[in-house]
This record gives sequence, structure tokens and C-alpha cells, in this order.
Amino acid sequence: MDLIEAIYNCRAMRRLDPDRPVAKERLVELIDAANQAPTGSNSQRARWVVVTDPAQKQKLADLNRRWAAPYIQPSLDNPRDDAHARMLKAVVWQMDHMHEIPALIVACFDYEEAPEGLEVYRQGGSLWPGVQNLLLVARSLGLGAAPTTLALRDQNLVREALGLPPTFAALCLIPVGYPLGNFGPVTRQPVEEVMRFDRWS
Amino acid sequence: MDLIEAIYNCRAMRRLDPDRPVAKERLVELIDAANQAPTGSNSQRARWVVVTDPAQKQKLADLNRRWAAPYIQPSLDNPRDDAHARMLKAVVWQMDHMHEIPALIVACFDYEEAPEGLEVYRQGGSLWPGVQNLLLVARSLGLGAAPTTLALRDQNLVREALGLPPTFAALCLIPVGYPLGNFGPVTRQPVEEVMRFDRWS
Repeated sequence: MDLIEAIYNCRAMRRLDPDRPVAKERLVELIDAANQAPTGSNSQRARWVVVTDPAQKQKLADLNRRWAAPYIQPSLDNPRDDAHARMLKAVVWQMDHMHEIPALIVACFDYEEAPEGLEVYRQGGSLWPGVQNLLLVARSLGLGAAPTTLALRDQNLVREALGLPPTFAALCLIPVGYPLGNFGPVTRQPVEEVMRFDRWS
Repeated sequence: MDLIEAIYNCRAMRRLDPDRPVAKERLVELIDAANQAPTGSNSQRARWVVVTDPAQKQKLADLNRRWAAPYIQPSLDNPRDDAHARMLKAVVWQMDHMHEIPALIVACFDYEEAPEGLEVYRQGGSLWPGVQNLLLVARSLGLGAAPTTLALRDQNLVREALGLPPTFAALCLIPVGYPLGNFGPVTRQPVEEVMRFDRWS
């Protein structure tokens, strides 16, 4: 697939087919692409747990529901507009079906020392570029995905669920599967609103 | 350019031609691609300052030298191996020539409230995927780039240099230009070492 086509059509896909498994080879392709991304000082300490086992997926689904349900409810009661309401419905679908989505990929960074509090976010620049590679290659393979972080609010619970060492921070959960809906272009504000030359103001 | 080709050949390019300017249209293309990346809750608060003015570039070059020089020196005295020594030489070149690299792009996130301390890193997931889009499209346009963060150690100094509001965090600096060297494949550890199915251990 063409790079530009992938970038401009990589919409968040939350409704994924529970009945169409994803071959392990495809999942390894996603992680291999993620593994090519740059990391600070070329540290290469991004780590990936690809969860396909039903009992393990249930643990992540339970963690997601714990934080997602109270997070979503106020917005459901009062969406900003129609687009927001549609997105919220998809997030609810994702919450209700997460345990049966074919693969739940958890993106981690190994700090080599146990990170405290907000330190878990410090090396995001050595992990999130790989997440974007993963999303783009998923798109090119006809796989849907959508990064989320709600399930990861309590790092100790995630470490326990996935057997992560205490030096790991889990920064992103990416449900992956074949989409039930259609791919389409992303909608973003015009580039003029997000950039300036030489100084912001 | 093919997506997979871009991902697997997007080596960090630090030696960039000072005498070959980059058209503003190309720079806007980079930011437009960055602007397509996902952001948490679709917040779309990534902001980009594209610095081409010589006096503004000098400010960023000075900030980079302040933090980069003491950071690099111990490694220069004692590189891990030949590959590390080559990378360090390129980082020194980048430091010495940063003021004359055609464009220095600073990736920011607007927190809407002034972030304190490590809070500046919290929303990295809403910025770094865009950085990766930018790097991939740069590669497809024959432009070299390499993300760095050393110049941004003191957020107040960066805000002052670029006229950033106090709500902005500057998380990544990307020098961009036509490369003096050759593009080539990236080298990474085998995927088996960075992934596990279902649990880490």
C-alpha cells in the first residue's frame, strides 16, 4: 500500500469482527514494523505483548471496563455533537466486546528501573512512533485497530495481568481485528491551524 | 512510496545539506501528514513550529549545544562499539551544524493548562505518532530527518525562543533537509526479542 494512502485513511477502527481470527504471522508483521521505529539514543527498549488467549483478553477487558465506563458516561449523557456521539457509541462497543476482539496488543517500554508515577510517560517518544508504524501496517493489511490507554491506568494491575517486570510501563493497548465497518479517510482540522513558521506568536 | 519500504528504510539522517533549501510546500506536506495521526480522545492538540529563519534556528542550535555537548562527551570518550561511535560522530555533526540545517521542526502539545514537571510527557501519545508520520513522509520525499529532544530540556527556554504559550510542551525537535549521505535500511534487534504472546513471563 502507498504510504500517503495509508496515512490519510488510517481511521480508528473500534468495531472488529470477533469471528474472524488474525493469523499469528500477521500479528508478528505488525510488531516487526513497530520495531523499526526510532527510539531515543537508539535504546530499542519498546516491548510488545500480543494477547490472543481468551482468559488473558478477559483480564484486559475487565481493566478497560473499570476505567472506561466511568470515563465515558458523562460524555454519553452530553455529547459535544453527532460525530462525538458516534465515536462514543464505538467506544462502548469496544468496551462491551473487548474480550472477544481477536488480538489485544499492549505496547510497553522497559525503563530498566521501576518507573515511579509520571515517569512512566517519560520515554513515550521511544514507543509511540512504533505504535504508529503498527497502525499503518495494520491498515495496509486490511486490519482495523484503535489505540487506547484507559485499561492501563493502574500500571501494577496491568503488570500483574500480563506478567510484566516492574521495570515495564504499559503505555498503549491496541485492539486488532478485521473491521465490521468500512475504512475511510480521517477528518482533521486544517493544517494552517496547527502550524506556524518560526514562532508560535 | 510504498509504506513498507518507507518504514524499513527510515534511518535517522543527521548530516543534512545546508546549501539545499527545502521548499515551504514540502514542509507543509510534512505537517499535514503529521496532523493525520491519532490523538487521545481525538483531542487534535498537537502543534508544530517550523523554523527556517536563521536567527530562530540559531536559538535552537544554542539550546541544543547547551544540553547535547555534556551529554555526548562521556560517550565520545568511551563508545560502546563502532556503530555507537559512528552515531556519536553524526550527533556531533548535527550539533555543530544545526543552525544551518534548512528546517528545524518543533513538535508541541497544547495542554490547555500549563503542565508542571513530568506532566509535559503525559500526552506524548497524542504527538509522537504524528512525528512518525512526518518522518515517513520526509523519507518518501527524499528528505532526511532525525528526532531529538536534547534542545528541549528546559521548557521555559524553548517557550521563550519560539513564542510558545505556557500551555505548550515542546517534546521533539526534528531537523529536516536533503541528506549529505545515503539512505539505507534500519538495523534493529530481531522481533522475537521484543515480543511475547499472552504474557511477558
